[in-house]
Amino acid sequence: MTPERLLFVVDLAGTLFFGLEGALAAIAGRLDVFGVMVLAFATALGGGLVRDVLIGAIPPAAIRDPRYAIAGFVGGGVAIALRRVVARMPVAVSTGLDAAGLALFAVSGAVKAHDVGIAPLMAVLMGTITGVGGGTIRDLFLARVPAVLRVDVYAVAALAGATVTILGLGGDRPRAVSMAAGAAACFLLRVVSARQGWNLPRIGRP
Amino acid sequence: MTPERLLFVVDLAGTLFFGLEGALAAIAGRLDVFGVMVLAFATALGGGLVRDVLIGAIPPAAIRDPRYAIAGFVGGGVAIALRRVVARMPVAVSTGLDAAGLALFAVSGAVKAHDVGIAPLMAVLMGTITGVGGGTIRDLFLARVPAVLRVDVYAVAALAGATVTILGLGGDRPRAVSMAAGAAACFLLRVVSARQGWNLPRIGRP
Amino acid sequence: MTPERLLFVVDLAGTLFFGLEGALAAIAGRLDVFGVMVLAFATALGGGLVRDVLIGAIPPAAIRDPRYAIAGFVGGGVAIALRRVVARMPVAVSTGLDAAGLALFAVSGAVKAHDVGIAPLMAVLMGTITGVGGGTIRDLFLARVPAVLRVDVYAVAALAGATVTILGLGGDRPRAVSMAAGAAACFLLRVVSARQGWNLPRIGRP
Repeated sequence: MTPERLLFVVDLAGTLFFGLEGALAAIAGRLDVFGVMVLAFATALGGGLVRDVLIGAIPPAAIRDPRYAIAGFVGGGVAIALRRVVARMPVAVSTGLDAAGLALFAVSGAVKAHDVGIAPLMAVLMGTITGVGGGTIRDLFLARVPAVLRVDVYAVAALAGATVTILGLGGDRPRAVSMAAGAAACFLLRVVSARQGWNLPRIGRP
Repeated sequence: MTPERLLFVVDLAGTLFFGLEGALAAIAGRLDVFGVMVLAFATALGGGLVRDVLIGAIPPAAIRDPRYAIAGFVGGGVAIALRRVVARMPVAVSTGLDAAGLALFAVSGAVKAHDVGIAPLMAVLMGTITGVGGGTIRDLFLARVPAVLRVDVYAVAALAGATVTILGLGGDRPRAVSMAAGAAACFLLRVVSARQGWNLPRIGRP
Repeated sequence: MTPERLLFVVDLAGTLFFGLEGALAAIAGRLDVFGVMVLAFATALGGGLVRDVLIGAIPPAAIRDPRYAIAGFVGGGVAIALRRVVARMPVAVSTGLDAAGLALFAVSGAVKAHDVGIAPLMAVLMGTITGVGGGTIRDLFLARVPAVLRVDVYAVAALAGATVTILGLGGDRPRAVSMAAGAAACFLLRVVSARQGWNLPRIGRP
């Protein structure tokens, strides 16, 4: 698989997961069928759109290539079709789906920024924004404080995955290895911290 | 009238209507005179700005050409000047203004995306985003769930108008015909569904 | 100091002030340490990012040059380190910091738009958006109506500063003079109006 192909597959899988996850949030919020699809689309494509605009890759990949929108809508459709099955599944499944989307996007976002010559620190931040952007737009639409601010170790996990990926790209090893290591770091950190209830320290008032 | 001119007039008329409509929402929310103008500006220009950034037409038309901002502010000024008249008008008028802005933007947005080579599916979505974008930004500013998610058959109407327009552009007929058909489809669908109280099916919980 | 250097220093100082101010808002909102840094980053860089995208200067300066992000994070770090000191300071200090950031950004934003050939009216609006953009994103993240709509004479001060700057650029005088005059106009108007409780007229309902 060529590097471009690998990146595309990772990106598309993240889009599908986030479309599914955004639609489930919309269904839980009792939106109509169109609102569910709007939220699936915004959650799935939002992070990548913001990233591409910020790194100057416009029109963004998700606008140039209709397969991204289709992946987001397929995720939304699957959520609608399987909502009865999903409701009986443990909460770990939706956390896992979300963590998978987060990991795939953090990695693909960091690599894309790196590939157009963005400095390492900013490439890491672009990966983080790609990961948390879609969910942030979803939460803004639902008029609630974004998960990135509410949930402990969410953006931190995306940051960790993007950092591992960018550090790994520096050496001689295949790109797929760095991406897999970054995705694993993000996914594990997110899932374990959700399970263990790990919290970051609050800033105490004086 | 040249195609460029037609598109400009349609776009500017939509900007005026949405500026008027955004200002009325701000007046209803008891904002000060400057807040009313900010909301008129954001509602009028928001959708087109997002669309132009996403299709790579930057700086966006509404930044390059001051007449867009002026149209938005004129809409806001008219709303302030005529607020007494407006308050005595039936609710159908504000629905009609909003539907007119939605229809003009859905059509002009789809055509602009199509003209820079965006694929049909994405051009339809860009038209929809142009139509609903300004109102969505207005609602985010007012800290409420966007109309696009709350109101039945709102984004659907924009989607229908953009679809009719893009399908029509494929043939030999004049561009104005496709645009008029698309705008009529969006406007009628929105106005009739608002009047009839049409709803999309909610996704039932299991 | 070259004009480019002057603009960079002004921009970076605004970034530091807004990072500090965004972090203080996050600390007051009881966010965790990462949430404080996210809000410092968004408040500090948001306005400039939106401006650069809208004037077509992409990738934005704050993505190309990591020193902007570092300035925002330093502002956030200072806020965390000095939170006990800050809490004992009068409210005038946080108003002053915010007004300083607003003034620096309104001026640098207007000049940057002017330098890439944006028309005067739109350059003034771009300066205003640069000034109020970061705080608006901060408020959207905290799920509250943006200060730009709530606080009297906030966006008006940014507008005044940008207008003075753009009018001043037309003549023969050194650029630094116009920028200093614009920043002073914005800062003074904001601080004095906050102290005096000046209000803009509300639009009365009929």
